[in-house]
Amino acid sequence: MSTGKTYRPKAETPKGFRDYFGAEVTTRKAMLDAITAVYHRYGFDPLETSAVETVEALGKFLPDVDRPNEGVFAWQDEDADWLALRYDLTAPLARVAAQYRYDLPSPYRRFAMGPVWRNEKPGPGRFRQFYQCDADTVGAPSVAADAEICAMLADALEAVGIERGDYVVKVNNRKVLNGVMEVAGLSGDDKEAERGIVLRAIDKIDRLGPEGVRALLGAGRKDDSGDFTKGAGLSADQAETIMGFTSAIRATGTETVARLRDLVGASAIGTEGVDELETIATLLAAQGYGPDRIVIDPGVVRGLGYYTGPVYEAELTFEILDDKGRKRQFGSVAGGGRYDGLVKRFTGQDVPATGVSIGVDRLLAALHAKGRVIADTAGPVVVTVMDRDRMADYMAMVGELRTAGIRAEVYLGNPKNFGNQLKYADKRQSPIAIIQGGNEAEKGTVILKDLILGAKIAENATLEEWKDRPAQVEVPRTDLVAAVKKMLAP
Amino acid sequence: MSTGKTYRPKAETPKGFRDYFGAEVTTRKAMLDAITAVYHRYGFDPLETSAVETVEALGKFLPDVDRPNEGVFAWQDEDADWLALRYDLTAPLARVAAQYRYDLPSPYRRFAMGPVWRNEKPGPGRFRQFYQCDADTVGAPSVAADAEICAMLADALEAVGIERGDYVVKVNNRKVLNGVMEVAGLSGDDKEAERGIVLRAIDKIDRLGPEGVRALLGAGRKDDSGDFTKGAGLSADQAETIMGFTSAIRATGTETVARLRDLVGASAIGTEGVDELETIATLLAAQGYGPDRIVIDPGVVRGLGYYTGPVYEAELTFEILDDKGRKRQFGSVAGGGRYDGLVKRFTGQDVPATGVSIGVDRLLAALHAKGRVIADTAGPVVVTVMDRDRMADYMAMVGELRTAGIRAEVYLGNPKNFGNQLKYADKRQSPIAIIQGGNEAEKGTVILKDLILGAKIAENATLEEWKDRPAQVEVPRTDLVAAVKKMLAP
Repeated sequence: MSTGKTYRPKAETPKGFRDYFGAEVTTRKAMLDAITAVYHRYGFDPLETSAVETVEALGKFLPDVDRPNEGVFAWQDEDADWLALRYDLTAPLARVAAQYRYDLPSPYRRFAMGPVWRNEKPGPGRFRQFYQCDADTVGAPSVAADAEICAMLADALEAVGIERGDYVVKVNNRKVLNGVMEVAGLSGDDKEAERGIVLRAIDKIDRLGPEGVRALLGAGRKDDSGDFTKGAGLSADQAETIMGFTSAIRATGTETVARLRDLVGASAIGTEGVDELETIATLLAAQGYGPDRIVIDPGVVRGLGYYTGPVYEAELTFEILDDKGRKRQFGSVAGGGRYDGLVKRFTGQDVPATGVSIGVDRLLAALHAKGRVIADTAGPVVVTVMDRDRMADYMAMVGELRTAGIRAEVYLGNPKNFGNQLKYADKRQSPIAIIQGGNEAEKGTVILKDLILGAKIAENATLEEWKDRPAQVEVPRTDLVAAVKKMLAP
Repeated sequence: MSTGKTYRPKAETPKGFRDYFGAEVTTRKAMLDAITAVYHRYGFDPLETSAVETVEALGKFLPDVDRPNEGVFAWQDEDADWLALRYDLTAPLARVAAQYRYDLPSPYRRFAMGPVWRNEKPGPGRFRQFYQCDADTVGAPSVAADAEICAMLADALEAVGIERGDYVVKVNNRKVLNGVMEVAGLSGDDKEAERGIVLRAIDKIDRLGPEGVRALLGAGRKDDSGDFTKGAGLSADQAETIMGFTSAIRATGTETVARLRDLVGASAIGTEGVDELETIATLLAAQGYGPDRIVIDPGVVRGLGYYTGPVYEAELTFEILDDKGRKRQFGSVAGGGRYDGLVKRFTGQDVPATGVSIGVDRLLAALHAKGRVIADTAGPVVVTVMDRDRMADYMAMVGELRTAGIRAEVYLGNPKNFGNQLKYADKRQSPIAIIQGGNEAEKGTVILKDLILGAKIAENATLEEWKDRPAQVEVPRTDLVAAVKKMLAP
């Protein structure tokens, strides 16, 4: 590894990990702060659990992975207990809801934001540490809790800068699908394998299209590479019933609900699901959330296998260009739903819960695509050092600027090469360089250089060229702060 | 472990880890946001590195621990590479400064805030995951960089609510101690063991007092349990020289500098250190930071072994009561200094660096002790549910309140027992409960209950008692938002 005599470690992040610099940190923080303000207004309280949990408390598998310990960073501590980094924010919530069940308010509304870790093969844009931003209500059986989270999700998207009309929150219900399965004759205990295939098939509708799903519902499907996936073996009628569910959306929520009621027929669980969807729509309408923001859409199938009641997903409807320059909708940035068994693993008691997870990186990418980055990412005013013996004078200048609330720095590198100082200011995206050489010091003045105007020629400019640019002013030293403020004003 | 047939995992954090709820998260965030604003104004950029590093990049030991892998949570990944959780924010900075050395501005001012992990025996108040808040300047050889960080530290303390006069930033210099060692005849390569004993001895001055340190400088010291620690074996004269350093502080910075100049005599390194201290004082004075905020104090010895030049420490000077009810100064909340070898481990090149770390939990404790908690920790207005069939009406109320920017909730638990709703509001520290039963609905009114006044009797109140309290008003439904605003107004 090392070639010389002295061993030098490699200065690298581990594979699949990355660093976030400056504006990357600031913009994410500004976005999460805007979301926090909405969650706070809705009465949700922050919860920050530790990054490390016992493997026992986490559960041995990710929601969609059934191999034990798959996908988790884990190690054995000195007492031989297995510890692991959390892989999401829901498993720690389950542990907290059980551990503090006699102390927490019930229902317990909480939000959590922070990194999670997945021990998976990294790939382009696929990291082993990433942010999640979750909000959940634990202990509220009523679908009013689901409706509330849908409304909060809409508000959160608008708070970060996604305009109304550029997003839609789609609501569906797992119970309706269960009802449809019942109607299709797939409800018995002996039909679990078929139901599994059906779930996985409709989960792929975006990728395979209706025909691909229909093939998987029937005998099976051969993909482009020639590989054959065995299907659920449903009859054409059965398959039609299932497909009817995924395409049941109509022009209005009332019509969609009516169509679904038709589809679930006499199924009790199906009817319950349709009733829940109707109630959610009514509760949202009472708060002024109409179908321009939140719609009932049975086409939302993602994660249906994991959830037990209402499911919801936020999609951004504006178009972006993909890698190949083709237009496509931005797509999903958040999803969630109602799930059981959260606390039950620990206590044996059913505790209803519903919650949403926002894809932090996806939403940030959307804000960038829309030019809606919230944070102020301007660089500092840079006070240059013309005469290193007068460092105290330069520090006094920077002190005055900072006291006036202006972001400012004195150049702290070797001041000998003035060009380096200007290159530094350029790299810092500095709006203004302050210059005071011996002449100016004698006259009691300072020079302010407008670097936003001058940025393009900055890289190779000598001091002489620099001083001749029109975008510079010489002002009395006593006017420094006022002159900087004036130049910074938009 | 489990007694029943179904195995139930324990709902517990691993030993030494904890959860942070509601106001604990909010107050820490508010404090860190205030510090961020100061760091930003000083031109420092945020850096967020991943929690996971290669063991190789981290280095195999903590600054003050010399056993390999001691104190770190580490595991082997599937490629047999050892990975570990970062134990501080400085080691990742070193890796970043080396990895991106051609891309980062130089000097590079960065701040970082986040959790770090130590695999140590947990104890009371001693956790294995805790926050650090660091600011460092990499690549600035001038002590102007050290002076800047001292000024920034003072500003940060004031920004979070520590008043001027309640803190002092103490500055010392490792080079001065080196000079004093030279004067005491301890500078040769063969005296490394003695210098180590001297460093460790004066590092303990707070605990052992001058006499204990003097014993360790001489033959050795027997502690209360009878254990004997071998000393450095210095003569009385040599010990006197060293002790003179730790007690060199005088009434003014000028006098302290003069005294130190005396102590280091003809030592070149010692004189350099004294010059640096003098320069720092001059630069700080030019920015208006006088000895009411920042003082030269050779009594600051903590961590001298780790640093190579200026060191600084922020102490809070107000008194608190300790566990036994005795008055004592609050003490240190932040410390730092100049260190070499940061990037050198990776690149072989010296890169000067200086930085400070704020003890996040210590500073939070200080703010609590002074009653200076920044965050608004008020609970939400709770809209109670008197009639579950009118949930849409209650959600409309809560929607109006939220739209007006008021933190509000509708009760989402089982509404049957109204007392439970009031207990819930109490637990949520709700300022106001909104009540609308059938009568009020008919009249088109709502009742607002002032819970801050009513808090004490809330726990066992029946609805009837509750309605008779004077701290409640009945207002037209249309006046809901205005009436809530009025009741919330201070």
